[in-house]
Amino acid sequence: MSDDLTQVDAWWRAANYLSAAQIYLLDNPLLQEPLRADHIKPRLLGHWGTSPGLNFVYAHLNRAIRARDLDMIFIAGPGHGGPAVLANAWLEGTYGEVYPEAGHGAEEIRRFVKQFSFPGGVPSHAAPETPGSIHEGGELGYSLMHAHGAAFDNPDLHVACVIGDGEAEAGPLAASWPSIRFVDAARDGAVLPILHLNGYRIAGPTVMGRMDDAALDALFRGHGYAPLFVCGDEPARMHRDMAAALDAAFDSIAAIQRAARDGTATPAETPRWPLIVLRSPKGWTGPERVDGAPVEGTHRAHQIPLPGVKDDPDHLRQLEAWLKSYRPDELFRDGAPAEALRAIAPEGVRRMSANPAANGGRLLRPLDLPALAPAEVEVPAPGAVQASANKALGAWLREVMRANPDNFRLFGPDETESNKLDAVFDVTGRKATGEVRDDDADLAPDGRVMEVLSEHLCQGWLEGYLLTGRHGLFNSYEAFVHIAASMFNQHAKWLRVSGGLAWRAPVASLNYLLTSHVWRQDHNGFSHQDPGFLDHVASKGAEVVRIYLPPDANCLLQVARACLESRDRVNVIVSGKHEESQWLSPEAARAHCEAGLGAWDWASDEVPPDVVMACAGDVPTQETLAAVALLREHLPDLALRVVNVVDLMALQPPPRNADGLDDAGFDALFTTDKPVIFAFHGYPGLIHELTYRRRNHHNFHVHGYSESGTTTTPADMAVRNALDRFHLVLAALRRSGRDDPAAEALAAHCRDRLEAHHDHVRATGTDLPEIRDWRWPG
Amino acid sequence: MSDDLTQVDAWWRAANYLSAAQIYLLDNPLLQEPLRADHIKPRLLGHWGTSPGLNFVYAHLNRAIRARDLDMIFIAGPGHGGPAVLANAWLEGTYGEVYPEAGHGAEEIRRFVKQFSFPGGVPSHAAPETPGSIHEGGELGYSLMHAHGAAFDNPDLHVACVIGDGEAEAGPLAASWPSIRFVDAARDGAVLPILHLNGYRIAGPTVMGRMDDAALDALFRGHGYAPLFVCGDEPARMHRDMAAALDAAFDSIAAIQRAARDGTATPAETPRWPLIVLRSPKGWTGPERVDGAPVEGTHRAHQIPLPGVKDDPDHLRQLEAWLKSYRPDELFRDGAPAEALRAIAPEGVRRMSANPAANGGRLLRPLDLPALAPAEVEVPAPGAVQASANKALGAWLREVMRANPDNFRLFGPDETESNKLDAVFDVTGRKATGEVRDDDADLAPDGRVMEVLSEHLCQGWLEGYLLTGRHGLFNSYEAFVHIAASMFNQHAKWLRVSGGLAWRAPVASLNYLLTSHVWRQDHNGFSHQDPGFLDHVASKGAEVVRIYLPPDANCLLQVARACLESRDRVNVIVSGKHEESQWLSPEAARAHCEAGLGAWDWASDEVPPDVVMACAGDVPTQETLAAVALLREHLPDLALRVVNVVDLMALQPPPRNADGLDDAGFDALFTTDKPVIFAFHGYPGLIHELTYRRRNHHNFHVHGYSESGTTTTPADMAVRNALDRFHLVLAALRRSGRDDPAAEALAAHCRDRLEAHHDHVRATGTDLPEIRDWRWPG
Repeated sequence: MSDDLTQVDAWWRAANYLSAAQIYLLDNPLLQEPLRADHIKPRLLGHWGTSPGLNFVYAHLNRAIRARDLDMIFIAGPGHGGPAVLANAWLEGTYGEVYPEAGHGAEEIRRFVKQFSFPGGVPSHAAPETPGSIHEGGELGYSLMHAHGAAFDNPDLHVACVIGDGEAEAGPLAASWPSIRFVDAARDGAVLPILHLNGYRIAGPTVMGRMDDAALDALFRGHGYAPLFVCGDEPARMHRDMAAALDAAFDSIAAIQRAARDGTATPAETPRWPLIVLRSPKGWTGPERVDGAPVEGTHRAHQIPLPGVKDDPDHLRQLEAWLKSYRPDELFRDGAPAEALRAIAPEGVRRMSANPAANGGRLLRPLDLPALAPAEVEVPAPGAVQASANKALGAWLREVMRANPDNFRLFGPDETESNKLDAVFDVTGRKATGEVRDDDADLAPDGRVMEVLSEHLCQGWLEGYLLTGRHGLFNSYEAFVHIAASMFNQHAKWLRVSGGLAWRAPVASLNYLLTSHVWRQDHNGFSHQDPGFLDHVASKGAEVVRIYLPPDANCLLQVARACLESRDRVNVIVSGKHEESQWLSPEAARAHCEAGLGAWDWASDEVPPDVVMACAGDVPTQETLAAVALLREHLPDLALRVVNVVDLMALQPPPRNADGLDDAGFDALFTTDKPVIFAFHGYPGLIHELTYRRRNHHNFHVHGYSESGTTTTPADMAVRNALDRFHLVLAALRRSGRDDPAAEALAAHCRDRLEAHHDHVRATGTDLPEIRDWRWPG
Repeated sequence: MSDDLTQVDAWWRAANYLSAAQIYLLDNPLLQEPLRADHIKPRLLGHWGTSPGLNFVYAHLNRAIRARDLDMIFIAGPGHGGPAVLANAWLEGTYGEVYPEAGHGAEEIRRFVKQFSFPGGVPSHAAPETPGSIHEGGELGYSLMHAHGAAFDNPDLHVACVIGDGEAEAGPLAASWPSIRFVDAARDGAVLPILHLNGYRIAGPTVMGRMDDAALDALFRGHGYAPLFVCGDEPARMHRDMAAALDAAFDSIAAIQRAARDGTATPAETPRWPLIVLRSPKGWTGPERVDGAPVEGTHRAHQIPLPGVKDDPDHLRQLEAWLKSYRPDELFRDGAPAEALRAIAPEGVRRMSANPAANGGRLLRPLDLPALAPAEVEVPAPGAVQASANKALGAWLREVMRANPDNFRLFGPDETESNKLDAVFDVTGRKATGEVRDDDADLAPDGRVMEVLSEHLCQGWLEGYLLTGRHGLFNSYEAFVHIAASMFNQHAKWLRVSGGLAWRAPVASLNYLLTSHVWRQDHNGFSHQDPGFLDHVASKGAEVVRIYLPPDANCLLQVARACLESRDRVNVIVSGKHEESQWLSPEAARAHCEAGLGAWDWASDEVPPDVVMACAGDVPTQETLAAVALLREHLPDLALRVVNVVDLMALQPPPRNADGLDDAGFDALFTTDKPVIFAFHGYPGLIHELTYRRRNHHNFHVHGYSESGTTTTPADMAVRNALDRFHLVLAALRRSGRDDPAAEALAAHCRDRLEAHHDHVRATGTDLPEIRDWRWPG
């Protein structure tokens, strides 16, 4: 081997040694004394199988970084290979910079090795705690989308992304290969996918592992890549092949970028980016056989290749021999990498474990947020004008995109226009993935509106974009955002952990705009009607999530700005796209949204209420006010208070939500003994879950989505779920105990109008004009 | 054109006519008078763009069915094309057989056309209401997995599956292409994917629509298919090409199956199945231009190609001319298809809209369920033995699989063995996707254990398998089943609707086994810890879902049998795989599980309780009993009742859960005024949501997962979330108001043991022996 490959091999051996040591050793980390049972961890936890392959890739990438001075981050798709990622960060010295107690030094390396997958220590996967990682290695499938999100608007960045062949079976990963077509070689950085075929999942062979090279070559050529194959198990030859493949890949990336940036390439043409297929044995360099059964190169190498070490002296000796096979004496000195090893690590921020892009908050530039005023809706009196909240938001987002051309992107499944955010197309286009034709609308090779019919990709790209220090918004059909529910989980978990790590700088929040929501999916029917994402989000706790239900355009703008300013959270905004009554002036909206919830005096009586009419969501607010208007007209002596909730989590008391409304404030608003008729956008259970500790909770009567949907009219959706004005009036009458003649007459009126509604809808397919055209009487 | 293609063309025109008519016409369905504005629907809703392509495919498949007497079902991936699927079902006469009021006849066709996307009518997508459909067309991405699920163990069935190029961007669809490698040509039916490239989503071009034929050919060859291309817009040539492509495809399928079934093929070799790429204009045969802008072949044809018809006389005339271009006078007579058209439809169950496989309940054979006894665990006294619940289940599932070799499959992401269900490998293997090697464990070309690292595929295959009349179980890591959360939603919605349709026979329930659950993911850490799927499931309502938390092996067996016997539901079972204390004998387990919940007298005092100690879930049950043992020992005068909940939804009162425990029963069990310390497997909010209407709800103090996870020991997971015995004792003391010296001493003891626990775990990485080895004192 050439000198540089000898160095690479030394690094590889050191990382492999440390990977195995982390899994096995409680003490004696460098085998400076003969290995004894009491040096072994009591519980052997971790994934060896993928680790040597990750180490191999990492070592070779370091060679390329040094040779080419590359700005690169590393994404470990097989994130179970935590031992590998940790080993490399430790070798590079980053680990000790972040966690001095577990850095270089005799005592420190002991702690480093012991803490792995140990109580009070570090997870066995790449995780927020891992320097250099923007990718949690638990739930598989998101590596390649994170890689692309990191590369967008990062023209100098290289993202090396190792994808396991198990992970490659996952839907989100399978959807990710075409991401390469969304890369603009001029404005974006480069992603180098390295498909690591080690052939096995935990128990069975992988699908790709049993495909031959010709099939894989065809597949990836079809996807638009130029695949390079590195296959084998003999280290010296593999080193040569891998070095050559990486040289070819980085030459090719440089050529593609040069052509795109000096204007010699056709922008609409998708370049053929390189991709590496690395086929190497699972558990490479580990035990070949254990107790007679083959281990290296089989599924048995997945986790602990050599079990029972503490109790079986033969296995203990085999472990010692295995560890010694890496020749640790050559590699380490005084609990630190030997000088020769240190000399070949990239330096400073060129170390992948120390690249600031992998700690995106350090690079975060706050958005240049334009004034809301030009987008705001003039509301001379509550209900006096009609407007589309989303359209107002679109007008503001256009200015956000104009002012932040390399720091903000909009993601969504092809609904930017139908969701009424199309004003953004004044300043940028949809990202084109191929030829742009005359009839295409708002399509551009350098577009920054990322439309793809995959909620997974929208979410994953955005996560990668945020975690490398930028800002964005994902707009989705409310019902279908569930597709990314599990990704939300993992991101919320990431934020909860990273928020507790002082060295991780805060990142911009992940913002969802859920629109085309349950109450306005009347035409698309039952399959499109589902507000349950709010329940799912709320379960992750107010430390990391907020849910906003702005009742109108000016509130939506306030909320959107607050979300774009916030950090380390997931914010969910639910807002409709249709023309609706507007309630609050810009000033009133600002005050209301800052409070998060409050009584609307203009719709409430001045005396203590007999009934509280609460609402959260645009349609519930409208129906509540229509109910209030009916009650006012027919039953003027019933004292009402209208409470509108924008910040849903504010209903949850401290300490569960430190920013929640305290009990005194809650009791003042909702009373301690009066019925509360609560019209809610989502499933009623969520309001109960958030308020069950409140004093007046037993008086909460929540009307929300009761899973009664179909293809029908807007008003009929409300009626079917008893969220409409008439049902709300009937509930207010019943719960306030009013059964005098005036109340009876109003109840009869409501029942009559419900019947008339029913007949009219069935006959004409449209809503009663009195409902459809209802306006707040003021 | 040849005669048969002329016939195909006539069918195509008729279906296209009806598709457009459904979108536009309220009346005058066959244009027997000049079209007027009042014939037009007030709201124009529906998707024209994909419909002519679907009709084209359907017409050609009918030709092949008649020519070859094929048993075939049709899956419309672009399910927005409801007009097309409905039109063909109507033409075939099936629609009128199922819904006589909207069948053939002058009045009936008026109703048929009017009801589309009309209140009180039918959804605009393929849906449960659609004869011939097993696939909801709302949320995109699941067509090809449903198709494969339908084909497994259905050797004579052909599943034609149209995949839209929008849908093809979705993760689950992208993951589905390799499904073909899981098809056993001998035992399974055939799936014929027809990728329909019409080029556009709602607003922008699709990724695949802008890929050239060479790239697509490489891609699908890589996936293992032999693609056939049918591309163009000239009907006569397209008819010829499509007929030829289908002939080639069905010839090839027949040859593959023949070879596999007569033993001339190598079983392990994946045959190269055909796939058709159909590239045709979006909105083909519809308006070419509207108001000067191109429509046919662009994204403008996606939904309503010609808007404002009711108000714009020019558009009205253009609509009339468009509809007349199909020459309806030739195609229809007296509100029915003309004789010539009827003659070319397949007959009886050969009609894809009438194929019983698309109404799977009609084919459902109940499982042959073996006795539980051989798998049951002998439990001489509560807590007397330790066993793995999943292992017992595995032993029973082995017999289920043995007794039902073509009617039951097990699905999961490669965890069958690690989840301790590996006894099933005694009777079948993992399905191999390629070569079987010597070192492979339990891999077989005809295996019926479907392992793939995609929860989407597991879920989608199972859905297709169930909806065509078979049975199955999906076992998953609890945290990662969220990946399929949105698919669960859609399936639950399907069941809710289909359950209300008399003509749809009940199908077997979709059964989840959630294992490797939150309380035993201590080694994998925070990313693997999430019990929130239960909340998500519960929101869909007791009409269609059940959640079971069996506390031990014998209860798990009872519950599993009940789930496999149930119909039209989603059942979620949560169960651990580790060795745990066993509580109930087979007889006691049967009685307990039949009740769904109940007091455990052997652990309760005979007098009315001072405190109710409730529990749901295996780990919570163990911790509750350990707490009870501590209370007993230290505070014998505190009267306790232990209530164990297996059927979680039973906590929800009627009418929300018709099978829920009534209030009298609930009050008798949980008292009306005593504190209830409830140890729960999941997020505490769910218990509050289910019980908030109960009289004693304000006394419920729920201990569950509070999002406090990390890599640690089993006992430490419980301690971190205050679900452990010591926290439960402390809660019982606090809530019962006991502050006498004995209670204080016990509280001090608990705090001392918590501290000892903490120190021991940090020092040794293992749990205190007194916790780890605790046994119920009896």
